[in-house]
Amino acid sequence: MDNLPPKEISDEEMINQAFHELLNDYLNTKHRKKVEIITKAFNFANQAHKGIKRRSGEPYIMHPIAVASIVCNEIGLGSTSICAALLHDVVEDTDYTVEDIENIFGPKIAQIVDGLTKISGGIFGDRASAQAENFKKLLLTMSNDIRVILIKIADRLHNMRTLGSMLPNKQYKIAGETLYIYAPLANRLGLYKIKTELENLSFKYEHPEEYAEIEEKLNATAAERDKVFNDFTAPIRTQLDKMGLKYRILARVKSIYSIWNKMQTKHVPFEEIFDLLAVRIIFEPRNIEEELNDCFDIYVSISKIYKPHPDRLRDWVSHPKANGYQALHVTLMGNNGQWIEVQIRSERMNDVAEQGFAAHWKYKEGGGSEDEGELEKWLKTIKEILDDPQPDAIDFLDTIKLNLFASEIFVFTPKGELKTMPQNSTALDFAFSLHTDIGSHCIGAKVNHKLVPLSHKLQSGDQVEILTSKSQRVQPQWEVFATTARARAKIAAILRKERKANQKIGEEILNEFLKKEEIRPEETVIEKLRKLHNAKNEEELLAAIGSKAIVLGEADKNELKEKQTSNWKKYLTFSFGNNKEKQEEKEPQEKEKINPKQVLKLTEESLQKKYIMAECCHPIPGDDVLGYVDENDRIIIHKRQCPVAAKLKSSYGNRILATEWDTHKELSFLVYIYIKGIDSMGLLNEVTQVISRQLNVNIRKLTIETEDGIFEGKIQLWVHDVDDVKTICNNLKKIQNIKQVSRVEE
Amino acid sequence: MDNLPPKEISDEEMINQAFHELLNDYLNTKHRKKVEIITKAFNFANQAHKGIKRRSGEPYIMHPIAVASIVCNEIGLGSTSICAALLHDVVEDTDYTVEDIENIFGPKIAQIVDGLTKISGGIFGDRASAQAENFKKLLLTMSNDIRVILIKIADRLHNMRTLGSMLPNKQYKIAGETLYIYAPLANRLGLYKIKTELENLSFKYEHPEEYAEIEEKLNATAAERDKVFNDFTAPIRTQLDKMGLKYRILARVKSIYSIWNKMQTKHVPFEEIFDLLAVRIIFEPRNIEEELNDCFDIYVSISKIYKPHPDRLRDWVSHPKANGYQALHVTLMGNNGQWIEVQIRSERMNDVAEQGFAAHWKYKEGGGSEDEGELEKWLKTIKEILDDPQPDAIDFLDTIKLNLFASEIFVFTPKGELKTMPQNSTALDFAFSLHTDIGSHCIGAKVNHKLVPLSHKLQSGDQVEILTSKSQRVQPQWEVFATTARARAKIAAILRKERKANQKIGEEILNEFLKKEEIRPEETVIEKLRKLHNAKNEEELLAAIGSKAIVLGEADKNELKEKQTSNWKKYLTFSFGNNKEKQEEKEPQEKEKINPKQVLKLTEESLQKKYIMAECCHPIPGDDVLGYVDENDRIIIHKRQCPVAAKLKSSYGNRILATEWDTHKELSFLVYIYIKGIDSMGLLNEVTQVISRQLNVNIRKLTIETEDGIFEGKIQLWVHDVDDVKTICNNLKKIQNIKQVSRVEE
Repeated sequence: MDNLPPKEISDEEMINQAFHELLNDYLNTKHRKKVEIITKAFNFANQAHKGIKRRSGEPYIMHPIAVASIVCNEIGLGSTSICAALLHDVVEDTDYTVEDIENIFGPKIAQIVDGLTKISGGIFGDRASAQAENFKKLLLTMSNDIRVILIKIADRLHNMRTLGSMLPNKQYKIAGETLYIYAPLANRLGLYKIKTELENLSFKYEHPEEYAEIEEKLNATAAERDKVFNDFTAPIRTQLDKMGLKYRILARVKSIYSIWNKMQTKHVPFEEIFDLLAVRIIFEPRNIEEELNDCFDIYVSISKIYKPHPDRLRDWVSHPKANGYQALHVTLMGNNGQWIEVQIRSERMNDVAEQGFAAHWKYKEGGGSEDEGELEKWLKTIKEILDDPQPDAIDFLDTIKLNLFASEIFVFTPKGELKTMPQNSTALDFAFSLHTDIGSHCIGAKVNHKLVPLSHKLQSGDQVEILTSKSQRVQPQWEVFATTARARAKIAAILRKERKANQKIGEEILNEFLKKEEIRPEETVIEKLRKLHNAKNEEELLAAIGSKAIVLGEADKNELKEKQTSNWKKYLTFSFGNNKEKQEEKEPQEKEKINPKQVLKLTEESLQKKYIMAECCHPIPGDDVLGYVDENDRIIIHKRQCPVAAKLKSSYGNRILATEWDTHKELSFLVYIYIKGIDSMGLLNEVTQVISRQLNVNIRKLTIETEDGIFEGKIQLWVHDVDDVKTICNNLKKIQNIKQVSRVEE
Repeated sequence: MDNLPPKEISDEEMINQAFHELLNDYLNTKHRKKVEIITKAFNFANQAHKGIKRRSGEPYIMHPIAVASIVCNEIGLGSTSICAALLHDVVEDTDYTVEDIENIFGPKIAQIVDGLTKISGGIFGDRASAQAENFKKLLLTMSNDIRVILIKIADRLHNMRTLGSMLPNKQYKIAGETLYIYAPLANRLGLYKIKTELENLSFKYEHPEEYAEIEEKLNATAAERDKVFNDFTAPIRTQLDKMGLKYRILARVKSIYSIWNKMQTKHVPFEEIFDLLAVRIIFEPRNIEEELNDCFDIYVSISKIYKPHPDRLRDWVSHPKANGYQALHVTLMGNNGQWIEVQIRSERMNDVAEQGFAAHWKYKEGGGSEDEGELEKWLKTIKEILDDPQPDAIDFLDTIKLNLFASEIFVFTPKGELKTMPQNSTALDFAFSLHTDIGSHCIGAKVNHKLVPLSHKLQSGDQVEILTSKSQRVQPQWEVFATTARARAKIAAILRKERKANQKIGEEILNEFLKKEEIRPEETVIEKLRKLHNAKNEEELLAAIGSKAIVLGEADKNELKEKQTSNWKKYLTFSFGNNKEKQEEKEPQEKEKINPKQVLKLTEESLQKKYIMAECCHPIPGDDVLGYVDENDRIIIHKRQCPVAAKLKSSYGNRILATEWDTHKELSFLVYIYIKGIDSMGLLNEVTQVISRQLNVNIRKLTIETEDGIFEGKIQLWVHDVDDVKTICNNLKKIQNIKQVSRVEE
């Protein structure tokens, strides 16, 4: 009788409801109404994933629907993208092929699904550096159709929103990757809202306690902020009403992740973050042609109420960022004695800021094609780098990340032509951005008509003239001067090519030399010469010989002929290389089996015997940490926010282990505490008293510097765990003239 | 028959014509038409100065008329000031008294004339530091009625315009004083146009050849600049026309003095000054209420044409400078590849910029009272400093000049209250600006919530919280930390008071000690103790004893008792001091009589025997120099632009001698040449070749530093004169990879 169990009915209802919400949302957008194809895609995907569940127990199809909903509502894309989002896991997880999709939905959707499938492929793969490879693929696909990456970001956003049901070690991997790659990517594409959510979610999984703490403090101070907001905006509203504008004013609270980040980098407590509140004025322009003027009119009228900060007027209205962001930022001194940033934007500008490029397409009619040009340029650069084969995928990841994170500056050619560059670009980067030939022959630059070295960092607004010389060649130290992906890749490629050429010449010279001196080209020959000339490896030795940095002569002859034995006639030519594999052969070792699905207990015993505390971040008991299984199967313990760990999470995500402390104040660990305050008699004595007497903790080293009555000091301490550190910091803060205490890295 | 010679008739005609021009100009202003009193003042002055001639041969009255004309036309003052200007030399130069003026013209005019007479009194006086005293008087008078200083500036401007007829040594004195005091004062009062003219005229008299050279180069490039201006402004005009604005666009060429200054400080030739041209847009607001919005509307529309520099948008429209200056400055990249500054102002703002405060009075109806408040504050500070008696007038001059030259920053109290401070102010300055008590007890500060020492330099927009402690006392090193006149004066006064008190205590302690040890308080006692404790002088010794920095004990006893002879009972108490005069007594010396009216010939012989080349500026033959007769009647030769000489000109103007070179390449002098360029093989060899072989000049020292392929070097050379330096520089510039060559100070 009951052939359909009640649970399945409710699943189906849930699915249908979710889809109808999606459809409704779509119908409320400005896109052309293509309900039919979306419904078709849903039915197809629903049928394909039928019976499959997510780890959370939900039907699998709920995920594609959620991704499609993000694509529609939060990124503002149209039917093609919505269909691709609904279908994004079909090829990956079922027996359908891209051809099937193309036959049913046409080439455009099929292409996007193909792209999504390709970059999804190895994401949980087992190869080292699989993530870097994936990232490369992802960028390659993106440069073909930007929608692939936008949907991928939506996919990642939904995964992050539902991360709780994953295994802890996967959580760290995914959260780390999100922070390392997806959040910067969302930022670069102008998806500021999504970027913020990705960061917050990552942070929440990596540091749940700190997240909760900041969240709680934000809640506790919310009423106060509301009052500040209301008091601050009341006279602004009066002014804007007088101007006859239609507008809304929003309170923007700094994101939890940003707050934490600031606390970390500035070494200040929550209470000393003073820019928690920002204000956003979003208006409907009185005339679309004059929305820029409206921005400044608003600026002028609120500047009559509050004094603006002289150096913080940022005009991204007349000149939008490369990702299309447009707004006028001004920081005003509120009546409460605090600076408050006010962002002035039209509704259109606000859409662009929240939805990124997609919003541009919406407003395409109203110009803005120039901004798309900037995106095109950026994508072209990415593509160029990708086209240039690089041996090491992780190097590549580093290189490209430089360009993702950086904000932009703009600089000018001598003729006044504008060029957008990543922040921290050098004159050398600029030379390579003009042309590889200019880059590889440049000898110096004039910045604002002043001679500077190639390593000179450019500032926004600089005018840069590159000086070249035909005789100049790419120098190895340039790899350090260059900061942009493009310049780095070009320099590396040229140097690699030169090195290869020199190696070849070197090999010839060496063979010639051996032949002439009648030395038998044994394998040890290279090794002896390598040692004699202090070369790192065979390649370096050969390149040096090829470039004439090493000239073979008497010394070499003597070295080689010493113990040369007979029967050398066997070999006439000698082939170098190809003996590396043997060197890398390892003896098989008996290791304890590690189960990555289990949470690792960090006991005092295991810390002494089995695990290695990372040198880069010096974790101590109580820190949020994770384990990383290295190539020798050793387990290294890193802080979760450690930059090295961040890279490991993104590049070797499958080697990450979840960890938990289980220590009992037996072992001691070294930490660094920074103090700053007003110099006074007996202060140092008070400091040491607090540490040694009150807490019975050993000071290893203490350095103090005083300048004009202000002292700064760093204390190296042996403690048991984070609790000890907190107690010490709190007690130090109670000393009258100490104004700042915080744990710092070395 | 001919009882009136024709020349007198033409003098009278000239006078009448000049006065009628003045009257006409006055009638064209917006002031109430008080022709009668002006005519009365003219007739009175004309009669009083009758028959007196200026050095130029003109009737004396032409000078007061010219000053009145400047007061009317260029500063925009009304009838009271015009009358005072006409009468300004009557009390000084004739038998009329201030009472006479008051009886005829009323108290207001009399007061101003009295002020002008007072500050004019000693201007050519013979006392050392007469100028500093005068300057003090001038400021005191100014703080009573600002019009005194405005008329004084007009007087100085006319004197500078007619400086050619003065003796050369007077020219340097007056030109130096103008550059040192009057130009900064005009700047501080917002009289930008007058300030520029004063600077240019001073420069012209001090460096006639360089003035002519720059002037010629400006003329030679004028047509080119005109073209740039026309090309640049054409699309701006189209835009502004579209906006329906009434406007005018002016080309502003950098002043000759500013060009020279930039060439000196940046060590670049004229050809490398790229901001010669600025553009000024002056518009009639469509509605006086919205002139600020108009400024930004213009900014928005021209930013659509040219890219603005991101860091050079200066909004002095919403928040005028303390002297009332209002404008929106923006720097745009022109099509010629050069940054061009555009100043956007309404006609009202332009008047304020050109005529300073006087223009404010004109527009008083339209608010602006707040800006006058800033002036009031400034005058109050000046007055406070003046009220505080300082022993050394030249120190005072230095102190107050710091505040004259500085541009302004604004900073905030913790409650968000705005304070205007001179640039380079420190946290300590800020503390003293709040209250002397806060200053003298401050121990540190928090700038933007971060702890900093008292010596920390403030930036515009900083929020500053001063931390105080009751136990804190003013420290001697604070004199170095403080940069504002107010803080310096306060600190000096407090330290002086403390020192005096300590000296008194020290004297008592010493007398007590001597009495107890039965040492006879002879004059040598102090000297012995001074030597023993390494004190600079008696005052310092006593203060140190008083402050317990020195505690008298066994060592002192032994030192003093050693050679003590008998009959000490004569003295019971001992009075210190008053023996300084004796020490300063000089033996009479036979000196050659110096005639200050003659131009000094600097021959090789005289340089070796009679004159001293100043250590501060190292002049060499061919440099523009002057002589200074020091207190020992030695003649020191300074460069005219030397900062030490600048102070001498203003403080000891009557000791300045005009000089002329008459050397014949016999003696050699040391100069420093700076070179910069791209490092390349053999470059150094080329440099030394040019210097030694081509010119037979000796290198004394050569330092070279290379960084990332750019080298910088400094060469110490023995040369005969400026011609040698020029030849060397020109030859060095011809070396291919050398990009910059210039003579520099040590």
